[in-house]
Amino acid sequence: MSGVFQDRLKDCAGQVASCLDGALAGRGDVPVVQAMRYASSGGKRLRAFLVMETGRLHGVADARSVWAAAAVEAIHAYSLVHDDLPCMDDDDLRRGRPTVHLKWDEATAVLAGDALQSLAFSLLCRDEMQAPADVRLELVRSLAAAAGVDGMVLGQAQDIRAESAGAPLSLAEITELQANKTGALIGWSAEAGARLGGGDPTQMRLYSRALGLAFQIADDILDVEGDVAVTGKRVGKDAAAGKATFVSLLGLEGARARAADLVDEAVAALDAYGEKAEGLREAARFVISRQM
Amino acid sequence: MSGVFQDRLKDCAGQVASCLDGALAGRGDVPVVQAMRYASSGGKRLRAFLVMETGRLHGVADARSVWAAAAVEAIHAYSLVHDDLPCMDDDDLRRGRPTVHLKWDEATAVLAGDALQSLAFSLLCRDEMQAPADVRLELVRSLAAAAGVDGMVLGQAQDIRAESAGAPLSLAEITELQANKTGALIGWSAEAGARLGGGDPTQMRLYSRALGLAFQIADDILDVEGDVAVTGKRVGKDAAAGKATFVSLLGLEGARARAADLVDEAVAALDAYGEKAEGLREAARFVISRQM
Repeated sequence: MSGVFQDRLKDCAGQVASCLDGALAGRGDVPVVQAMRYASSGGKRLRAFLVMETGRLHGVADARSVWAAAAVEAIHAYSLVHDDLPCMDDDDLRRGRPTVHLKWDEATAVLAGDALQSLAFSLLCRDEMQAPADVRLELVRSLAAAAGVDGMVLGQAQDIRAESAGAPLSLAEITELQANKTGALIGWSAEAGARLGGGDPTQMRLYSRALGLAFQIADDILDVEGDVAVTGKRVGKDAAAGKATFVSLLGLEGARARAADLVDEAVAALDAYGEKAEGLREAARFVISRQM
Repeated sequence: MSGVFQDRLKDCAGQVASCLDGALAGRGDVPVVQAMRYASSGGKRLRAFLVMETGRLHGVADARSVWAAAAVEAIHAYSLVHDDLPCMDDDDLRRGRPTVHLKWDEATAVLAGDALQSLAFSLLCRDEMQAPADVRLELVRSLAAAAGVDGMVLGQAQDIRAESAGAPLSLAEITELQANKTGALIGWSAEAGARLGGGDPTQMRLYSRALGLAFQIADDILDVEGDVAVTGKRVGKDAAAGKATFVSLLGLEGARARAADLVDEAVAALDAYGEKAEGLREAARFVISRQM
Protein backbone atom coordinates (compact mmCIF):
# COMPACT_ATOMS: atom_id res chain seq x y z
CA MET A 1 0.00 0.00 0.00
CA SER A 2 1.39 3.36 -0.98
CA GLY A 3 2.51 5.64 1.82
CA VAL A 4 1.00 8.65 0.05
CA PHE A 5 -2.47 7.12 0.03
CA GLN A 6 -2.10 5.88 3.60
CA ASP A 7 -1.07 9.36 4.76
CA ARG A 8 -3.96 11.01 2.98
CA LEU A 9 -6.44 8.50 4.42
CA LYS A 10 -5.10 9.20 7.90
CA ASP A 11 -5.19 12.94 7.29
CA CYS A 12 -8.85 12.81 6.16
CA ALA A 13 -9.71 10.62 9.16
CA GLY A 14 -8.16 13.18 11.52
CA GLN A 15 -10.03 16.08 9.93
CA VAL A 16 -13.34 14.21 10.09
CA ALA A 17 -12.74 13.27 13.72
CA SER A 18 -12.22 16.95 14.64
CA CYS A 19 -15.31 17.91 12.72
CA LEU A 20 -17.49 15.29 14.47
CA ASP A 21 -15.97 16.13 17.87
CA GLY A 22 -16.87 19.77 17.34
CA ALA A 23 -20.38 18.93 16.17
CA LEU A 24 -20.99 16.83 19.31
CA ALA A 25 -19.20 19.13 21.78
CA GLY A 26 -20.78 20.94 24.73
CA ARG A 27 -23.46 18.37 25.49
CA GLY A 28 -22.05 16.87 28.70
CA ASP A 29 -22.04 13.22 29.53
CA VAL A 30 -25.50 12.15 28.41
CA PRO A 31 -25.22 8.41 27.51
CA VAL A 32 -26.77 8.86 24.05
CA VAL A 33 -24.18 11.53 23.20
CA GLN A 34 -21.36 9.37 24.57
CA ALA A 35 -22.63 6.54 22.40
CA MET A 36 -22.75 8.82 19.34
CA ARG A 37 -19.12 9.87 19.93
CA TYR A 38 -18.06 6.24 20.45
CA ALA A 39 -19.89 4.96 17.38
CA SER A 40 -18.66 7.70 15.08
CA SER A 41 -15.00 7.42 16.10
CA GLY A 42 -12.48 5.01 14.63
CA GLY A 43 -12.98 3.16 11.37
CA LYS A 44 -10.99 3.47 8.19
CA ARG A 45 -12.87 6.51 6.91
CA LEU A 46 -12.78 5.32 3.30
CA ARG A 47 -16.04 7.21 2.57
CA ALA A 48 -14.60 10.40 4.06
CA PHE A 49 -11.47 9.98 1.98
CA LEU A 50 -13.57 9.57 -1.18
CA VAL A 51 -15.49 12.79 -0.49
CA MET A 52 -12.37 14.79 0.28
CA GLU A 53 -10.17 13.33 -2.47
CA THR A 54 -12.79 13.72 -5.22
CA GLY A 55 -13.37 17.19 -3.75
CA ARG A 56 -9.69 18.04 -4.10
CA LEU A 57 -9.78 16.68 -7.66
CA HIS A 58 -12.52 19.22 -8.37
CA GLY A 59 -10.79 22.14 -6.67
CA VAL A 60 -12.59 21.90 -3.30
CA ALA A 61 -10.49 22.63 -0.19
CA ASP A 62 -10.58 20.10 2.65
CA ALA A 63 -12.06 22.70 5.03
CA ARG A 64 -15.14 22.72 2.79
CA SER A 65 -15.47 19.04 1.88
CA VAL A 66 -14.83 17.77 5.41
CA TRP A 67 -18.46 18.55 6.37
CA ALA A 68 -19.81 16.29 3.66
CA ALA A 69 -17.19 13.70 4.63
CA ALA A 70 -18.34 13.84 8.27
CA ALA A 71 -21.96 13.57 7.12
CA VAL A 72 -21.43 10.31 5.24
CA GLU A 73 -19.37 8.90 8.11
CA ALA A 74 -22.24 9.75 10.50
CA ILE A 75 -24.66 7.83 8.25
CA HIS A 76 -22.21 4.93 8.02
CA ALA A 77 -21.77 4.92 11.82
CA TYR A 78 -25.54 4.94 12.41
CA SER A 79 -25.98 2.00 10.03
CA LEU A 80 -23.32 -0.03 11.84
CA VAL A 81 -24.89 0.63 15.26
CA HIS A 82 -28.32 -0.48 14.04
CA ASP A 83 -26.96 -3.42 11.98
CA ASP A 84 -25.16 -4.73 15.06
CA LEU A 85 -28.37 -4.82 17.15
CA PRO A 86 -29.54 -8.22 18.47
CA CYS A 87 -32.60 -8.12 16.17
CA MET A 88 -30.37 -7.52 13.14
CA ASP A 89 -26.88 -9.07 12.82
CA ASP A 90 -26.41 -9.45 16.61
CA ASP A 91 -22.73 -8.55 16.62
CA ASP A 92 -20.62 -8.05 19.72
CA LEU A 93 -17.47 -6.61 18.18
CA ARG A 94 -17.02 -3.59 15.90
CA ARG A 95 -13.82 -1.75 15.10
CA GLY A 96 -12.15 -3.94 17.72
CA ARG A 97 -14.43 -2.73 20.53
CA PRO A 98 -17.73 -3.88 22.09
CA THR A 99 -20.74 -2.83 20.01
CA VAL A 100 -22.87 0.08 21.29
CA HIS A 101 -25.77 -2.03 22.59
CA LEU A 102 -23.30 -4.07 24.68
CA LYS A 103 -21.36 -1.09 26.02
CA TRP A 104 -24.59 0.78 26.82
CA ASP A 105 -27.92 -0.91 26.05
CA GLU A 106 -30.24 -1.52 23.11
CA ALA A 107 -32.36 1.58 23.66
CA THR A 108 -29.26 3.80 23.67
CA ALA A 109 -28.03 2.07 20.51
CA VAL A 110 -31.33 2.69 18.69
CA LEU A 111 -31.37 6.35 19.79
CA ALA A 112 -27.69 7.02 19.09
CA GLY A 113 -28.14 5.62 15.59
CA ASP A 114 -31.24 7.72 15.03
CA ALA A 115 -29.47 10.87 16.19
CA LEU A 116 -26.40 10.15 14.05
CA GLN A 117 -28.68 10.08 11.01
CA SER A 118 -30.15 13.49 11.93
CA LEU A 119 -26.62 14.78 12.58
CA ALA A 120 -25.55 13.81 9.07
CA PHE A 121 -28.19 16.05 7.52
CA SER A 122 -27.31 18.88 9.93
CA LEU A 123 -23.70 18.72 8.79
CA LEU A 124 -24.69 19.20 5.15
CA CYS A 125 -26.36 22.48 6.12
CA ARG A 126 -23.20 24.00 7.60
CA ASP A 127 -22.19 27.32 6.12
CA GLU A 128 -18.54 26.31 6.42
CA MET A 129 -19.07 24.24 3.28
CA GLN A 130 -19.11 27.51 1.35
CA ALA A 131 -21.31 26.03 -1.34
CA PRO A 132 -24.48 27.49 -2.85
CA ALA A 133 -27.70 26.40 -1.13
CA ASP A 134 -28.84 24.47 -4.21
CA VAL A 135 -25.64 22.41 -4.20
CA ARG A 136 -26.03 21.59 -0.51
CA LEU A 137 -29.70 20.76 -1.05
CA GLU A 138 -28.69 18.37 -3.83
CA LEU A 139 -26.26 16.73 -1.38
CA VAL A 140 -29.12 16.35 1.13
CA ARG A 141 -31.41 14.91 -1.54
CA SER A 142 -28.86 12.43 -2.83
CA LEU A 143 -27.69 11.37 0.66
CA ALA A 144 -31.28 10.75 1.77
CA ALA A 145 -31.81 8.65 -1.38
CA ALA A 146 -28.57 6.70 -0.88
CA ALA A 147 -29.26 6.05 2.81
CA GLY A 148 -32.97 5.28 2.66
CA VAL A 149 -35.35 2.75 1.19
CA ASP A 150 -33.90 3.05 -2.32
CA GLY A 151 -30.36 2.49 -1.09
CA MET A 152 -28.71 1.34 2.10
CA VAL A 153 -31.85 0.38 4.04
CA LEU A 154 -33.17 -1.59 1.07
CA GLY A 155 -29.87 -3.47 0.89
CA GLN A 156 -29.98 -4.28 4.58
CA ALA A 157 -33.60 -5.44 4.27
CA GLN A 158 -32.66 -7.62 1.27
CA ASP A 159 -29.81 -9.08 3.32
CA ILE A 160 -32.07 -9.98 6.25
CA ARG A 161 -34.67 -11.41 3.91
CA ALA A 162 -32.07 -13.57 2.19
CA GLU A 163 -30.97 -15.02 5.52
CA SER A 164 -34.47 -16.06 6.48
CA ALA A 165 -35.43 -17.25 2.98
CA GLY A 166 -33.32 -20.37 3.16
CA ALA A 167 -32.26 -20.45 -0.50
CA PRO A 168 -28.93 -18.69 -1.12
CA LEU A 169 -28.91 -15.66 -3.41
CA SER A 170 -27.77 -15.75 -7.02
CA LEU A 171 -24.81 -13.68 -8.22
CA ALA A 172 -27.17 -11.10 -9.75
CA GLU A 173 -29.14 -10.85 -6.51
CA ILE A 174 -26.12 -10.47 -4.28
CA THR A 175 -24.63 -7.89 -6.64
CA GLU A 176 -27.83 -5.84 -6.44
CA LEU A 177 -28.01 -6.26 -2.66
CA GLN A 178 -24.47 -5.01 -2.22
CA ALA A 179 -24.94 -2.15 -4.66
CA ASN A 180 -27.70 -0.98 -2.31
CA LYS A 181 -26.22 -1.90 1.05
CA THR A 182 -22.72 -0.49 0.62
CA GLY A 183 -22.52 0.77 -2.96
CA ALA A 184 -25.02 3.61 -2.60
CA LEU A 185 -23.11 5.36 0.18
CA ILE A 186 -19.72 4.80 -1.47
CA GLY A 187 -21.19 6.19 -4.68
CA TRP A 188 -22.56 9.24 -2.88
CA SER A 189 -19.14 9.87 -1.34
CA ALA A 190 -17.29 9.90 -4.64
CA GLU A 191 -19.95 12.04 -6.32
CA ALA A 192 -20.17 14.54 -3.44
CA GLY A 193 -16.71 15.93 -4.10
CA ALA A 194 -17.56 16.54 -7.75
CA ARG A 195 -20.87 18.17 -6.85
CA LEU A 196 -19.21 20.45 -4.31
CA GLY A 197 -16.75 21.56 -6.96
CA GLY A 198 -19.54 22.18 -9.45
CA GLY A 199 -18.21 19.33 -11.62
CA ASP A 200 -19.90 16.51 -13.48
CA PRO A 201 -20.23 13.45 -11.22
CA THR A 202 -20.54 10.96 -14.14
CA GLN A 203 -16.97 9.62 -14.08
CA MET A 204 -17.01 9.53 -10.29
CA ARG A 205 -20.15 7.43 -10.48
CA LEU A 206 -18.47 4.91 -12.81
CA TYR A 207 -15.39 4.86 -10.59
CA SER A 208 -17.35 4.40 -7.38
CA ARG A 209 -19.67 1.70 -8.71
CA ALA A 210 -16.71 -0.47 -9.59
CA LEU A 211 -14.91 0.46 -6.38
CA GLY A 212 -17.94 -0.30 -4.18
CA LEU A 213 -18.41 -3.75 -5.63
CA ALA A 214 -14.67 -4.52 -5.41
CA PHE A 215 -14.81 -3.37 -1.79
CA GLN A 216 -17.62 -5.78 -1.00
CA ILE A 217 -15.96 -8.71 -2.74
CA ALA A 218 -12.80 -7.95 -0.74
CA ASP A 219 -14.94 -7.91 2.40
CA ASP A 220 -16.25 -11.39 1.60
CA ILE A 221 -12.69 -12.60 0.97
CA LEU A 222 -11.62 -11.14 4.32
CA ASP A 223 -14.51 -12.87 6.04
CA VAL A 224 -12.94 -16.14 4.89
CA GLU A 225 -9.27 -15.24 5.22
CA GLY A 226 -9.20 -12.36 7.69
CA ASP A 227 -7.82 -12.20 11.18
CA VAL A 228 -10.13 -10.77 13.84
CA ALA A 229 -7.15 -8.97 15.41
CA VAL A 230 -6.71 -7.03 12.15
CA THR A 231 -10.33 -6.61 10.99
CA GLY A 232 -11.69 -5.69 14.44
CA LYS A 233 -14.89 -7.63 13.81
CA ARG A 234 -16.04 -11.22 13.85
CA VAL A 235 -14.83 -13.26 10.86
CA GLY A 236 -16.12 -16.43 9.28
CA LYS A 237 -19.67 -15.54 10.23
CA ASP A 238 -21.06 -15.58 6.68
CA ALA A 239 -19.81 -19.08 6.01
CA ALA A 240 -21.07 -20.19 9.43
CA ALA A 241 -24.49 -18.77 8.60
CA GLY A 242 -24.55 -20.55 5.24
CA LYS A 243 -24.98 -17.18 3.47
CA ALA A 244 -24.25 -16.76 -0.20
CA THR A 245 -21.22 -14.52 -0.67
CA PHE A 246 -19.08 -13.60 -3.66
CA VAL A 247 -16.62 -16.24 -2.44
CA SER A 248 -19.25 -19.00 -2.15
CA LEU A 249 -20.58 -18.08 -5.61
CA LEU A 250 -17.32 -17.45 -7.47
CA GLY A 251 -14.79 -19.40 -5.41
CA LEU A 252 -11.83 -17.71 -3.74
CA GLU A 253 -9.79 -17.36 -6.94
CA GLY A 254 -12.84 -16.30 -8.97
CA ALA A 255 -13.69 -13.64 -6.40
CA ARG A 256 -10.12 -12.34 -6.42
CA ALA A 257 -10.14 -12.16 -10.23
CA ARG A 258 -13.49 -10.36 -10.32
CA ALA A 259 -12.28 -7.82 -7.72
CA ALA A 260 -9.11 -7.21 -9.76
CA ASP A 261 -11.18 -6.61 -12.92
CA LEU A 262 -13.35 -4.13 -11.03
CA VAL A 263 -10.28 -2.26 -9.82
CA ASP A 264 -9.09 -1.97 -13.44
CA GLU A 265 -12.54 -0.65 -14.32
CA ALA A 266 -12.44 1.91 -11.50
CA VAL A 267 -8.97 3.06 -12.49
CA ALA A 268 -10.00 3.39 -16.14
CA ALA A 269 -12.87 5.70 -15.17
CA LEU A 270 -10.26 8.18 -13.92
CA ASP A 271 -8.30 8.42 -17.19
CA ALA A 272 -9.48 11.93 -18.01
CA TYR A 273 -8.17 13.26 -14.68
CA GLY A 274 -4.52 12.32 -15.31
CA GLU A 275 -1.92 12.51 -12.54
CA LYS A 276 -4.20 14.33 -10.09
CA ALA A 277 -6.34 11.23 -9.63
CA GLU A 278 -3.48 9.03 -8.44
CA GLY A 279 -4.83 9.02 -4.87
CA LEU A 280 -8.15 7.63 -6.07
CA ARG A 281 -6.38 5.01 -8.20
CA GLU A 282 -4.39 3.91 -5.18
CA ALA A 283 -7.58 3.74 -3.15
CA ALA A 284 -9.04 1.34 -5.70
CA ARG A 285 -5.95 -0.88 -5.58
CA PHE A 286 -5.98 -0.65 -1.80
CA VAL A 287 -9.47 -2.05 -1.32
CA ILE A 288 -8.47 -5.43 -2.74
CA SER A 289 -5.15 -5.57 -0.91
CA ARG A 290 -6.42 -4.47 2.48
CA GLN A 291 -6.01 -6.43 5.64
CA MET A 292 -8.68 -4.57 7.52
CA MET B 1 -64.63 20.84 18.69
CA SER B 2 -65.36 23.17 15.83
CA GLY B 3 -66.42 21.59 12.57
CA VAL B 4 -64.25 24.01 10.61
CA PHE B 5 -61.13 22.92 12.44
CA GLN B 6 -62.12 19.28 12.24
CA ASP B 7 -62.65 19.58 8.48
CA ARG B 8 -59.33 21.31 7.94
CA LEU B 9 -57.48 18.70 10.03
CA LYS B 10 -59.08 15.96 7.94
CA ASP B 11 -58.28 17.79 4.73
CA CYS B 12 -54.61 18.19 5.69
CA ALA B 13 -54.49 14.52 6.72
CA GLY B 14 -55.83 13.50 3.32
CA GLN B 15 -53.33 15.63 1.42
CA VAL B 16 -50.42 14.29 3.47
CA ALA B 17 -51.60 10.71 2.95
CA SER B 18 -51.58 11.22 -0.85
CA CYS B 19 -48.17 12.82 -0.67
CA LEU B 20 -46.69 9.94 1.35
CA ASP B 21 -48.42 7.34 -0.85
CA GLY B 22 -46.86 8.94 -3.89
CA ALA B 23 -43.44 9.14 -2.28
CA LEU B 24 -43.55 5.42 -1.44
CA ALA B 25 -45.18 4.23 -4.67
CA GLY B 26 -43.68 1.89 -7.23
CA ARG B 27 -41.57 -0.16 -4.85
CA GLY B 28 -43.53 -3.40 -4.80
CA ASP B 29 -44.29 -5.45 -1.74
CA VAL B 30 -40.96 -5.38 0.06
CA PRO B 31 -41.78 -5.78 3.80
CA VAL B 32 -39.79 -2.71 4.83
CA VAL B 33 -41.78 -0.55 2.38
CA GLN B 34 -45.08 -2.08 3.55
CA ALA B 35 -44.06 -1.27 7.12
CA MET B 36 -43.20 2.31 6.14
CA ARG B 37 -46.64 2.73 4.54
CA TYR B 38 -48.36 1.20 7.56
CA ALA B 39 -46.43 3.27 10.10
CA SER B 40 -46.90 6.55 8.25
CA SER B 41 -50.64 6.12 7.73
CA GLY B 42 -53.33 7.07 10.20
CA GLY B 43 -52.79 9.35 13.15
CA LYS B 44 -54.32 12.73 13.82
CA ARG B 45 -51.80 14.65 11.69
CA LEU B 46 -51.68 17.58 14.10
CA ARG B 47 -48.11 18.35 13.01
CA ALA B 48 -49.13 18.33 9.36
CA PHE B 49 -52.05 20.64 10.13
CA LEU B 50 -49.69 23.06 11.91
CA VAL B 51 -47.34 23.22 8.92
CA MET B 52 -50.15 23.72 6.41
CA GLU B 53 -52.23 26.11 8.51
CA THR B 54 -49.28 28.34 9.47
CA GLY B 55 -48.29 28.09 5.82
CA ARG B 56 -51.71 29.32 4.71
CA LEU B 57 -51.44 32.13 7.28
CA HIS B 58 -48.24 33.21 5.53
CA GLY B 59 -49.63 32.91 2.02
CA VAL B 60 -48.32 29.44 1.19
CA ALA B 61 -50.60 27.16 -0.86
CA ASP B 62 -51.26 23.66 0.44
CA ALA B 63 -49.66 22.12 -2.66
CA ARG B 64 -46.38 23.67 -1.51
CA SER B 65 -46.58 23.19 2.25
CA VAL B 66 -47.82 19.59 2.08
CA TRP B 67 -44.25 18.36 1.42
CA ALA B 68 -43.00 19.85 4.66
CA ALA B 69 -46.11 18.51 6.39
CA ALA B 70 -45.38 15.02 5.06
CA ALA B 71 -41.75 15.36 6.14
CA VAL B 72 -42.61 16.06 9.78
CA GLU B 73 -45.20 13.26 9.79
CA ALA B 74 -42.53 10.89 8.46
CA ILE B 75 -40.21 11.89 11.33
CA HIS B 76 -43.07 11.51 13.81
CA ALA B 77 -43.95 8.08 12.39
CA TYR B 78 -40.33 6.89 12.59
CA SER B 79 -40.12 8.01 16.22
CA LEU B 80 -43.28 6.08 17.13
CA VAL B 81 -42.02 2.90 15.45
CA HIS B 82 -38.71 3.05 17.31
CA ASP B 83 -40.28 4.17 20.63
CA ASP B 84 -42.63 1.17 20.51
CA LEU B 85 -39.75 -1.33 20.19
CA PRO B 86 -39.34 -3.91 22.98
CA CYS B 87 -36.06 -2.27 24.08
CA MET B 88 -37.80 1.11 24.39
CA ASP B 89 -41.43 1.45 25.54
CA ASP B 90 -42.37 -2.09 24.45
CA ASP B 91 -45.83 -1.18 23.19
CA ASP B 92 -48.15 -3.51 21.34
CA LEU B 93 -50.82 -1.05 20.20
CA ARG B 94 -50.48 2.16 18.19
CA ARG B 95 -53.23 4.08 16.42
CA GLY B 96 -55.52 1.18 17.29
CA ARG B 97 -53.41 -1.36 15.43
CA PRO B 98 -50.56 -3.75 16.28
CA THR B 99 -47.19 -1.99 16.42
CA VAL B 100 -44.77 -2.53 13.52
CA HIS B 101 -42.46 -4.95 15.34
CA LEU B 102 -45.46 -7.16 16.16
CA LYS B 103 -46.99 -7.03 12.69
CA TRP B 104 -43.60 -7.66 11.03
CA ASP B 105 -40.56 -8.10 13.26
CA GLU B 106 -38.06 -5.99 15.16
CA ALA B 107 -35.52 -5.79 12.35
CA THR B 108 -38.17 -4.52 9.95
CA ALA B 109 -39.30 -1.98 12.55
CA VAL B 110 -35.76 -0.65 13.02
CA LEU B 111 -35.22 -0.41 9.25
CA ALA B 112 -38.65 1.10 8.45
CA GLY B 113 -38.04 3.77 11.09
CA ASP B 114 -34.58 4.49 9.71
CA ALA B 115 -35.90 4.80 6.17
CA LEU B 116 -38.78 7.04 7.27
CA GLN B 117 -36.23 9.44 8.70
CA SER B 118 -34.32 9.52 5.40
CA LEU B 119 -37.62 9.95 3.56
CA ALA B 120 -38.42 13.05 5.62
CA PHE B 121 -35.28 14.82 4.43
CA SER B 122 -35.95 13.71 0.84
CA LEU B 123 -39.37 15.31 0.98
CA LEU B 124 -37.90 18.68 1.99
CA CYS B 125 -35.82 18.63 -1.20
CA ARG B 126 -38.82 18.33 -3.52
CA ASP B 127 -39.07 21.00 -6.15
CA GLU B 128 -42.87 20.98 -5.74
CA MET B 129 -42.34 23.09 -2.62
CA GLN B 130 -41.52 25.98 -4.92
CA ALA B 131 -39.30 27.59 -2.33
CA PRO B 132 -35.78 28.96 -2.76
CA ALA B 133 -33.01 26.46 -2.01
CA ASP B 134 -31.85 28.45 1.04
CA VAL B 135 -35.35 28.26 2.57
CA ARG B 136 -35.53 24.50 2.01
CA LEU B 137 -32.01 24.10 3.40
CA GLU B 138 -33.09 26.02 6.52
CA LEU B 139 -36.02 23.59 6.85
CA VAL B 140 -33.58 20.67 6.61
CA ARG B 141 -31.26 22.24 9.19
CA SER B 142 -34.04 23.01 11.66
CA LEU B 143 -35.77 19.62 11.21
CA ALA B 144 -32.48 17.78 11.79
CA ALA B 145 -31.96 19.86 14.95
CA ALA B 146 -35.52 19.27 16.20
CA ALA B 147 -35.38 15.52 15.51
CA GLY B 148 -31.86 14.78 16.71
CA VAL B 149 -29.80 14.85 19.85
CA ASP B 150 -30.74 18.44 20.72
CA GLY B 151 -34.46 17.71 20.39
CA MET B 152 -36.64 14.64 20.07
CA VAL B 153 -33.95 11.98 20.60
CA LEU B 154 -32.64 13.83 23.66
CA GLY B 155 -36.17 13.91 25.11
CA GLN B 156 -36.63 10.20 24.50
CA ALA B 157 -33.24 9.47 26.10
CA GLN B 158 -34.18 11.64 29.10
CA ASP B 159 -37.45 9.72 29.36
CA ILE B 160 -35.73 6.33 29.38
CA ARG B 161 -33.13 7.56 31.86
CA ALA B 162 -35.84 8.84 34.20
CA GLU B 163 -37.54 5.44 34.18
CA SER B 164 -34.38 3.63 35.20
CA ALA B 165 -33.25 6.31 37.69
CA GLY B 166 -35.86 5.39 40.27
CA ALA B 167 -36.51 8.91 41.58
CA PRO B 168 -39.42 10.62 39.79
CA LEU B 169 -38.68 13.80 37.82
CA SER B 170 -39.39 17.31 39.08
CA LEU B 171 -41.80 19.62 37.26
CA ALA B 172 -38.87 21.54 35.72
CA GLU B 173 -37.29 18.30 34.53
CA ILE B 174 -40.44 16.88 33.01
CA THR B 175 -41.18 20.19 31.31
CA GLU B 176 -37.72 20.18 29.73
CA LEU B 177 -38.06 16.52 28.76
CA GLN B 178 -41.38 17.14 27.01
CA ALA B 179 -40.13 20.30 25.33
CA ASN B 180 -37.51 18.06 23.71
CA LYS B 181 -39.50 14.88 23.16
CA THR B 182 -42.64 16.37 21.60
CA GLY B 183 -42.20 20.16 21.73
CA ALA B 184 -39.31 20.39 19.28
CA LEU B 185 -41.22 18.75 16.42
CA ILE B 186 -44.44 20.64 17.13
CA GLY B 187 -42.40 23.85 17.19
CA TRP B 188 -40.75 23.00 13.90
CA SER B 189 -44.16 22.36 12.35
CA ALA B 190 -45.58 25.75 13.31
CA GLU B 191 -42.42 27.59 12.27
CA ALA B 192 -42.11 25.76 8.93
CA GLY B 193 -45.20 27.44 7.49
CA ALA B 194 -43.83 30.88 8.36
CA ARG B 195 -40.42 30.04 6.92
CA LEU B 196 -41.95 28.76 3.69
CA GLY B 197 -43.86 32.00 3.33
CA GLY B 198 -40.74 34.06 3.99
CA GLY B 199 -42.27 35.29 7.27
CA ASP B 200 -40.86 35.75 10.76
CA PRO B 201 -41.35 32.55 12.80
CA THR B 202 -41.13 34.32 16.21
CA GLN B 203 -44.87 34.39 17.00
CA MET B 204 -45.30 30.87 15.69
CA ARG B 205 -42.53 29.79 18.06
CA LEU B 206 -44.32 31.34 21.06
CA TYR B 207 -47.61 29.79 19.93
CA SER B 208 -46.16 26.34 19.41
CA ARG B 209 -44.18 26.26 22.64
CA ALA B 210 -47.35 26.81 24.65
CA LEU B 211 -49.31 24.46 22.38
CA GLY B 212 -46.73 21.68 22.63
CA LEU B 213 -46.70 21.72 26.41
CA ALA B 214 -50.52 21.89 26.61
CA PHE B 215 -50.61 18.93 24.23
CA GLN B 216 -48.35 16.87 26.48
CA ILE B 217 -50.27 17.75 29.64
CA ALA B 218 -53.46 16.71 27.85
CA ASP B 219 -51.71 13.46 26.92
CA ASP B 220 -50.94 12.78 30.57
CA ILE B 221 -54.55 13.53 31.51
CA LEU B 222 -55.73 11.13 28.81
CA ASP B 223 -53.38 8.46 30.10
CA VAL B 224 -55.33 8.65 33.36
CA GLU B 225 -58.81 9.26 31.99
CA GLY B 226 -58.64 7.97 28.43
CA ASP B 227 -60.34 5.04 26.82
CA VAL B 228 -58.15 2.71 24.79
CA ALA B 229 -60.93 2.40 22.20
CA VAL B 230 -60.68 6.15 21.58
CA THR B 231 -56.94 6.78 22.03
CA GLY B 232 -55.86 3.70 20.08
CA LYS B 233 -52.98 3.05 22.45
CA ARG B 234 -52.44 1.58 25.88
CA VAL B 235 -53.63 3.84 28.71
CA GLY B 236 -52.71 3.98 32.40
CA LYS B 237 -49.20 2.81 31.62
CA ASP B 238 -47.41 5.84 33.12
CA ALA B 239 -49.15 5.46 36.47
CA ALA B 240 -48.51 1.72 36.37
CA ALA B 241 -44.82 2.40 35.77
CA GLY B 242 -44.70 4.88 38.68
CA LYS B 243 -43.54 7.59 36.25
CA ALA B 244 -43.79 11.27 37.12
CA THR B 245 -46.33 12.96 34.87
CA PHE B 246 -47.94 16.39 34.87
CA VAL B 247 -50.93 14.77 36.58
CA SER B 248 -48.85 13.12 39.30
CA LEU B 249 -47.00 16.39 39.90
CA LEU B 250 -49.87 18.88 39.63
CA GLY B 251 -52.91 16.74 40.39
CA LEU B 252 -55.71 16.26 37.85
CA GLU B 253 -57.28 19.68 38.45
CA GLY B 254 -53.90 21.42 38.61
CA ALA B 255 -52.90 19.81 35.30
CA ARG B 256 -56.18 20.88 33.68
CA ALA B 257 -55.69 24.46 34.90
CA ARG B 258 -52.09 24.58 33.64
CA ALA B 259 -53.14 23.27 30.24
CA ALA B 260 -55.91 25.90 30.04
CA ASP B 261 -53.41 28.67 30.87
CA LEU B 262 -51.09 27.43 28.16
CA VAL B 263 -53.92 27.47 25.63
CA ASP B 264 -54.60 31.11 26.54
CA GLU B 265 -50.91 31.80 26.04
CA ALA B 266 -50.90 30.10 22.66
CA VAL B 267 -54.01 31.99 21.55
CA ALA B 268 -52.50 35.32 22.71
CA ALA B 269 -49.42 34.73 20.57
CA LEU B 270 -51.70 34.88 17.51
CA ASP B 271 -53.19 38.31 18.25
CA ALA B 272 -51.35 40.10 15.46
CA TYR B 273 -52.79 37.71 12.85
CA GLY B 274 -56.45 38.55 13.53
CA GLU B 275 -59.26 36.50 12.02
CA LYS B 276 -57.02 34.51 9.72
CA ALA B 277 -55.51 32.65 12.66
CA GLU B 278 -58.82 31.25 13.89
CA GLY B 279 -57.91 27.73 12.77
CA LEU B 280 -54.75 27.80 14.87
CA ARG B 281 -56.70 29.15 17.86
CA GLU B 282 -59.19 26.32 17.53
CA ALA B 283 -56.32 23.85 17.31
CA ALA B 284 -55.00 25.13 20.64
CA ARG B 285 -58.40 24.76 22.28
CA PHE B 286 -58.77 21.35 20.69
CA VAL B 287 -55.64 19.83 22.19
CA ILE B 288 -57.02 20.12 25.71
CA SER B 289 -60.51 18.94 24.79
CA ARG B 290 -59.45 16.00 22.67
CA GLN B 291 -60.58 12.48 23.26
CA MET B 292 -57.88 10.93 21.22
